[in-house]
Amino acid sequence: MDIIARLKAVSPNLLTGAETLAYGRDWIGKHVTTPLAVLRPATTAEVAAILALCNETGTPVVPMGGNTGLTGATAAEGAVILSLERMNRIRDIRPEARLAVVEAGVILQDLHEASARHGLRYPMSFGAQGSARIGGTLATNAGGSNVLRYGNTRDLCLGLEVVLADGRVLDLMSALHKDNSGYDLRDLMIGSEGTLGVITAAVLKLVPAPRAHATAMVTVPGLSAALRLLNALQERTGGMVEAFEYMPRDYMARLARVRPDLTPPLGHDHDHTIFLEIASSVPRDCKADEDGRVPLAHHLEDTLGALFEEGLVSDAALAQSEAQRAQMWAIREAAAEISTAETPVVINDLCLPLDRVEDFLDRAATALRRLDPGFSTCVVAHLGDGNIHYTVTPSDAALCDAVMDTVEDIVADMGGSFSAEHGIGLAKLPSMRRRKDPVALEMMRAVKAAFDPKGVLNPGKTLP
Amino acid sequence: MDIIARLKAVSPNLLTGAETLAYGRDWIGKHVTTPLAVLRPATTAEVAAILALCNETGTPVVPMGGNTGLTGATAAEGAVILSLERMNRIRDIRPEARLAVVEAGVILQDLHEASARHGLRYPMSFGAQGSARIGGTLATNAGGSNVLRYGNTRDLCLGLEVVLADGRVLDLMSALHKDNSGYDLRDLMIGSEGTLGVITAAVLKLVPAPRAHATAMVTVPGLSAALRLLNALQERTGGMVEAFEYMPRDYMARLARVRPDLTPPLGHDHDHTIFLEIASSVPRDCKADEDGRVPLAHHLEDTLGALFEEGLVSDAALAQSEAQRAQMWAIREAAAEISTAETPVVINDLCLPLDRVEDFLDRAATALRRLDPGFSTCVVAHLGDGNIHYTVTPSDAALCDAVMDTVEDIVADMGGSFSAEHGIGLAKLPSMRRRKDPVALEMMRAVKAAFDPKGVLNPGKTLP
Repeated sequence: MDIIARLKAVSPNLLTGAETLAYGRDWIGKHVTTPLAVLRPATTAEVAAILALCNETGTPVVPMGGNTGLTGATAAEGAVILSLERMNRIRDIRPEARLAVVEAGVILQDLHEASARHGLRYPMSFGAQGSARIGGTLATNAGGSNVLRYGNTRDLCLGLEVVLADGRVLDLMSALHKDNSGYDLRDLMIGSEGTLGVITAAVLKLVPAPRAHATAMVTVPGLSAALRLLNALQERTGGMVEAFEYMPRDYMARLARVRPDLTPPLGHDHDHTIFLEIASSVPRDCKADEDGRVPLAHHLEDTLGALFEEGLVSDAALAQSEAQRAQMWAIREAAAEISTAETPVVINDLCLPLDRVEDFLDRAATALRRLDPGFSTCVVAHLGDGNIHYTVTPSDAALCDAVMDTVEDIVADMGGSFSAEHGIGLAKLPSMRRRKDPVALEMMRAVKAAFDPKGVLNPGKTLP
Repeated sequence: MDIIARLKAVSPNLLTGAETLAYGRDWIGKHVTTPLAVLRPATTAEVAAILALCNETGTPVVPMGGNTGLTGATAAEGAVILSLERMNRIRDIRPEARLAVVEAGVILQDLHEASARHGLRYPMSFGAQGSARIGGTLATNAGGSNVLRYGNTRDLCLGLEVVLADGRVLDLMSALHKDNSGYDLRDLMIGSEGTLGVITAAVLKLVPAPRAHATAMVTVPGLSAALRLLNALQERTGGMVEAFEYMPRDYMARLARVRPDLTPPLGHDHDHTIFLEIASSVPRDCKADEDGRVPLAHHLEDTLGALFEEGLVSDAALAQSEAQRAQMWAIREAAAEISTAETPVVINDLCLPLDRVEDFLDRAATALRRLDPGFSTCVVAHLGDGNIHYTVTPSDAALCDAVMDTVEDIVADMGGSFSAEHGIGLAKLPSMRRRKDPVALEMMRAVKAAFDPKGVLNPGKTLP
């Protein structure tokens, strides 16, 4: 019996041929592969049977969630794709314990909606949340726009169920906030991009849904003032800051060219613009007055006024309505569109220590000017996390590799990371090879060998 | 050349004989061992040379911080103790980036004092903080009384430097809030009790120091009301709750007998007493009025008043002065003393899902009554974390094992953990053997083999 027939015997919902095409192609269209077959198991036991068989026969397996990754981590040439899409049940929401028990195939947006019905939220959101699945967010340790306040996926997960390469089920389905019974296998699995096991279910933390927001665009005299502004805001609001996004002059210039319909409230002509938002679930902050304004908005206005007096803020525009708030968000969310609007393009998803961002931007600009006097950049940063999307347009496509290398040299020298939130997949393998601590790479390979000795799980990804 | 002479050649500050006695004995006096020697290296390179030599010669090595653990994790019969006490430098505090770079031998209290000079704090505190060292808190993923708001050690650590069993240095000294470049080796090392590597330095997060506290003792109609009270407080204060400690009737009765000098403000005669504290760094909460009261205290009073109307609180006493606050803390901090005041004693450091604590306490009491009608308990819980210190006094010492087994059976059945914050060491090895998911145990052994193939690092600990 050939492998397809044997797989079909344990997992009947199997696709081959033309039906696999959509699975073989990532959504940015950069990685197009021909999978051997696509399996869509409905239970953990079925996943276990598939993996046992693939391990026995040496058949490569690529786990897949919503297929919204940016690094080619689900490219599957000649491999079996194991799609978790049918394991999409929210098993339980326990509002008193502030947790959700979900299967890996649950779509992020569906969890948002289910949580909202209890006045709660799962505080992870990003552009692809309408199709991204929880298993994928766990496999990549996804970030998104709430990291500043709530952390990465790792900070939001209490427990996991994982099927190992040989089909054994690893039960880490803890709903506990403290558990010191042995090594942290959960966090090892999170972010391992399907190379150590297949996540089938998880216990996730929920938080109270915010009842009010206060949103502003401000200009600041410099990046060091920006960091002091963030710290002062955190201190004076008790940690309510949910967004603190940095848009320098090059971003605003590109916005003016590519999206002239979006008008920044303080104009385009500033070196350093910050978009910020605070949010609260506290009733005393959230009860609107007769003008429809909430105390939270007054609090932000007063705080920014005080920080203006202290020289940390040059100018500020507060959103006076939901429409103005949406317009400010749109200016930030245009990033993907405007930063790739001019080609050739080198996309860097970098992280720097919070107090090194300014120095990094100076050094990178100097080094790139030396390499390519005609370069331009479009920079936008989750400044509160030190995460910089540093997009470069060289004057000549032949310079792309040299540009990436120059930028990553500086990042490495300053203790930064070449992959902040997107992961490694295939796209960042060269950076892993060149930049990662060699001892760390050796130990990651040893861990891989311990969990997947035959190398059937997502082969060729994550580790060079 | 014998091993002592060879060790002395790479690490001259070596102790043998009577000088090692203090190191061979844990502070509770339960584990008394005779180490081969005590090494006190001053640099990472020296640690590396020691481990390379021990690995080559198959000499067992037990890393040691402040020797304040509760599980015998530093027992060292015939082994070399590697004390980090001389690596006690705070290398850097970077207030703008809210981080500290420390060596493993820094005493927790010293880090508190250094952080306070910048208006910041490292939010980890527990009884032994005057002698516990950072390396030990990392090796055990220490908890303590700030977990509810700030998380365990794992949540507070950005980066690590680790010397591996064979002397290679693993450089994970990241100061980054986002880094998805490969497997999470950092969290694997944290909590591994020195069995996977020796932590020599760390990058730790700092937070703004609170400027005001508001503290209360309240009684509640039941445990389910207590959990709803916690959730309501979190929501209405925006997550300011720093302590939420549960003391049932048996705790208060024991307190009355053992510490009659400590008078609970609401008396001893309640089924369910909660000690709670909120704290803030927000100036508008913290500016005292002419009576010396801060707005935060009024806010807590108003909130508890509203929750009384909602039936979640039966009675409340707010601390009106620092002296009253100290008295309330003393009632909670008497736990260690009063819970071990009557013998025989079975100490359980348990964790349950937040919404299962009530059910657990009912089931445990029923099962123990069946086993031993003459038993008594002294229960106190970090209720906000689900962490229950469940101390049992059986009527006969011969029942101790059966009591522990009965309690752990129920914990396991309800998805709890037999070790919330103290770790495994030697003391909890039987529980690991009996209770831990067997697949998890197998994979932990595989990880151990990958990191320490010759088994020289803290042998016989953590894994049965």
